[in-house]
Amino acid sequence: MAAGAPPGSPPDDEPAVAAPASLPPLAASLRAAYDPARFRADGHRLIDRLADHLVAAEGRDDAPVLPWVEPAAAQAAWPDDLPDRGDDDLVDVLTRIAAGSIRLHHPRYLGHQVPPPLPGAALADLVAALLNNGMAVYEMGPTATPMELAAVRWMARQLGLPAGAGGVLTSGGSLGNLTALLAARQARAGFDAWAAGDHGGPPLAILGSTQAHYSLARAVRIMGWGDGGVVPVEVDARWRLRPDALDAAWTRAADAGRRVVAVVASAGATGTGAYDPLAEIAAWCAERGVWLHVDGAHGAAAALSPRHRHLVAGIERADSVVWDAHKLLALPALVTAVIFRDERRSYQAFAQEASYLYAAGDGDRDAAHAEWFNLGLRTLECTKRMLSVMLYGVLAAHGPGLFRDYVERVFALGAALAARIDAAPDFELVTPPDGNIVCWRWRPAGGPPPGPELDALQARVRRAVLVRGRYYLLQTRLPVGVVLRAALMNPLADERELDGVLDEIRAVAAV
Amino acid sequence: MAAGAPPGSPPDDEPAVAAPASLPPLAASLRAAYDPARFRADGHRLIDRLADHLVAAEGRDDAPVLPWVEPAAAQAAWPDDLPDRGDDDLVDVLTRIAAGSIRLHHPRYLGHQVPPPLPGAALADLVAALLNNGMAVYEMGPTATPMELAAVRWMARQLGLPAGAGGVLTSGGSLGNLTALLAARQARAGFDAWAAGDHGGPPLAILGSTQAHYSLARAVRIMGWGDGGVVPVEVDARWRLRPDALDAAWTRAADAGRRVVAVVASAGATGTGAYDPLAEIAAWCAERGVWLHVDGAHGAAAALSPRHRHLVAGIERADSVVWDAHKLLALPALVTAVIFRDERRSYQAFAQEASYLYAAGDGDRDAAHAEWFNLGLRTLECTKRMLSVMLYGVLAAHGPGLFRDYVERVFALGAALAARIDAAPDFELVTPPDGNIVCWRWRPAGGPPPGPELDALQARVRRAVLVRGRYYLLQTRLPVGVVLRAALMNPLADERELDGVLDEIRAVAAV
Repeated sequence: MAAGAPPGSPPDDEPAVAAPASLPPLAASLRAAYDPARFRADGHRLIDRLADHLVAAEGRDDAPVLPWVEPAAAQAAWPDDLPDRGDDDLVDVLTRIAAGSIRLHHPRYLGHQVPPPLPGAALADLVAALLNNGMAVYEMGPTATPMELAAVRWMARQLGLPAGAGGVLTSGGSLGNLTALLAARQARAGFDAWAAGDHGGPPLAILGSTQAHYSLARAVRIMGWGDGGVVPVEVDARWRLRPDALDAAWTRAADAGRRVVAVVASAGATGTGAYDPLAEIAAWCAERGVWLHVDGAHGAAAALSPRHRHLVAGIERADSVVWDAHKLLALPALVTAVIFRDERRSYQAFAQEASYLYAAGDGDRDAAHAEWFNLGLRTLECTKRMLSVMLYGVLAAHGPGLFRDYVERVFALGAALAARIDAAPDFELVTPPDGNIVCWRWRPAGGPPPGPELDALQARVRRAVLVRGRYYLLQTRLPVGVVLRAALMNPLADERELDGVLDEIRAVAAV
Repeated sequence: MAAGAPPGSPPDDEPAVAAPASLPPLAASLRAAYDPARFRADGHRLIDRLADHLVAAEGRDDAPVLPWVEPAAAQAAWPDDLPDRGDDDLVDVLTRIAAGSIRLHHPRYLGHQVPPPLPGAALADLVAALLNNGMAVYEMGPTATPMELAAVRWMARQLGLPAGAGGVLTSGGSLGNLTALLAARQARAGFDAWAAGDHGGPPLAILGSTQAHYSLARAVRIMGWGDGGVVPVEVDARWRLRPDALDAAWTRAADAGRRVVAVVASAGATGTGAYDPLAEIAAWCAERGVWLHVDGAHGAAAALSPRHRHLVAGIERADSVVWDAHKLLALPALVTAVIFRDERRSYQAFAQEASYLYAAGDGDRDAAHAEWFNLGLRTLECTKRMLSVMLYGVLAAHGPGLFRDYVERVFALGAALAARIDAAPDFELVTPPDGNIVCWRWRPAGGPPPGPELDALQARVRRAVLVRGRYYLLQTRLPVGVVLRAALMNPLADERELDGVLDEIRAVAAV
């Protein structure tokens, strides 16, 4: 029967439901697209193609690591549309995409902080994609929800955080940093920033070094704190935050009329991989009652190695930590843990209800924890991927020793590359690496001194390597100028690549 | 050679690089985990298991759609850790996860707005996961970058937006809505909200109906506008935004000292699927110079059907549109397009540089467009998945007709379910559906009138259906009270499920 108009609503001028006499038959296109037999046949063919892709890349074939095409030419190849005739073979299309992509599994990939993903983790990701449990509420992820919470607790435990620590998985480190800072804002602004808005109190600020990831400066501006919302803290000679400079930064914030809600420390910094001295920073924060957020997107995984965990000493005192499993846990992007020392803090990031999702949920921290199983209360995402499947699959099949071995391998590669640079007369190591990120300069005999000319030389050499495509490495600008940069993310690299990339630079520079 | 201390830095007290004598051999664990032969063998076994999963679900087996376990019991199964002995078979583990998950491919899935993904799209997603091109900069996605931009232009064109429209893909509709509103803030605040922060001008607001998705109210509070940052606009009898109520809402905002930067319209609303009258809203926005943001996360895909595109008439006049390809394009989550009428607006969301990523990029809109190929300038994500691979793969293999057929099928299912409810004496159709979302109530003879008792009855019936697990359907609270709700997302459903879910409700209610 039809409903009457809701009380107090204007009269409904809509026609009654026009019922189709009967449901039309299922379109042939849909029947074909959902056909399990087609999935099975395409799937087997695709697995073989992807395995072949791995064989070629890991086997160090001579094809480019990066099939370089100038952006303008790439644009021209995709002028204003997608090919959509619908008569292509799916597996062929996907194979062509692979051929045009950068090959992270090739040991000559020495590029961004994105790993060649563990192939088994990619298979786990396929399961997440096909099951597509949306996870905003428990019902939409009855296995994925408790697994995700357990995964984050597992990660918290690796960092030495106390019982009661936990959090959620989210879509990337930038979103993770924003989520953590939203919780910090709500916890330490001194007023209800969520409900009252920024005009309900004084301007807010975080303290952080200039080497902090740009997503933190972005998060501050997203939240409406403006350029003054990040008060820079001085760094030492290796561009690590100086704890003895926190007092001065605090004073500068106060002089500008800003309330400091958090200190952001890097473990490690994006540019150089350097780890800020977390224990000393934590001590300062405890004394001042300031929230400590550690951006461990890249480097928190050092905790998994007895050899390297000293780098993150003090992380167990953080109020929040961001840790990307798609970096040093070698999972496909994006799998970011936002870990709170007190898991209940995770509700403070988004103090809100959505009646179509939640029976209760009034924004109160303890009341909300009664709904620990409805993750949409705690993540920016409403629909969310089953992000824990990959971590769980790898842990179950390989154990945590695989992650330890990965971290130790890529850190050893960083040290070995740095040692070669340090020993070479024509290269300059810019800073000793803490981990797997190495920054250096090409300093040939008779070359320019530090300054614009040397900067231009690095950029020219880097571009020549890029275009040639045999190696992929990076450049960045540090306070000393433009430097060459490599993130050693591929554990399959060895001495051949470490020597080879330096020889490649010499070779392209000689042209 | 070692670098001298950077000029102006404190003296470097670090030891020189301690070079390991030689790189240790590659750990056996890493060799095994990256072994292409293992990937090939596991991959083939997994494809068969997943195909079997599809056969069972699509074939309407009798196992539960949702294997319901009380949250507390699920929690107990994952007490504080992950199983991590490392001796499990990966494929077995993943199969167990599938067995505990909700099965969207079963035609009795009538649940949230998450589709049973096209199996071919899940294969495309596997390629994205394994290639893992991070896409923050062009180099890290030399094929994925131009493909993504072309994909968004393709979507913009389907909506009738003019040449010059475009944007980016991001991780979900909530993040998409935030991204669009950040651009609107920067474009229409009347001051540089990014740099100056909220204290640099008057409080801001958007106008939107109470039926707008909760992510919009969240975005406003993330940006620091507080509860007053959303000024509600009255709705009509079907809970659609009333264009003739915009003047009054504007006045209320002005009286509260708030500057209106945007109107948010829904296409369609999450609760009922109702489409706001976009053409009339667009006319009002044009007259007032207010940004029009259309949240088309769920329903923008109506544009792909000649039969239904009238629902989105006027969307071509929007300044920004969010459209989830993981809803009515049936792709696995998350693939959200943030489309701007003027693609260059997409730089205004995040007006910032990151020197380690970008050679230039000064926040100026036109200068930044010279770097169209570095997507990290325009997305919250830094590392980002290759989100366009799935859309491209499906379009190339099936053509856009598949999407049209999908939309028409699930909308026909919505109409057919509504017609059955309307004709049944013991059910009440709450509002005629615009598309594939249907809201209704169980109104048995002699049952309670609208009020708390009727609300409780709906909740009790819904829960009984849930626990029994044969069907998955939802409930939500509308202004008229608690209602049953189904999003018809599975095109394989037919008359059996439409009749069956109503009979299921009668059956559980009778117990």
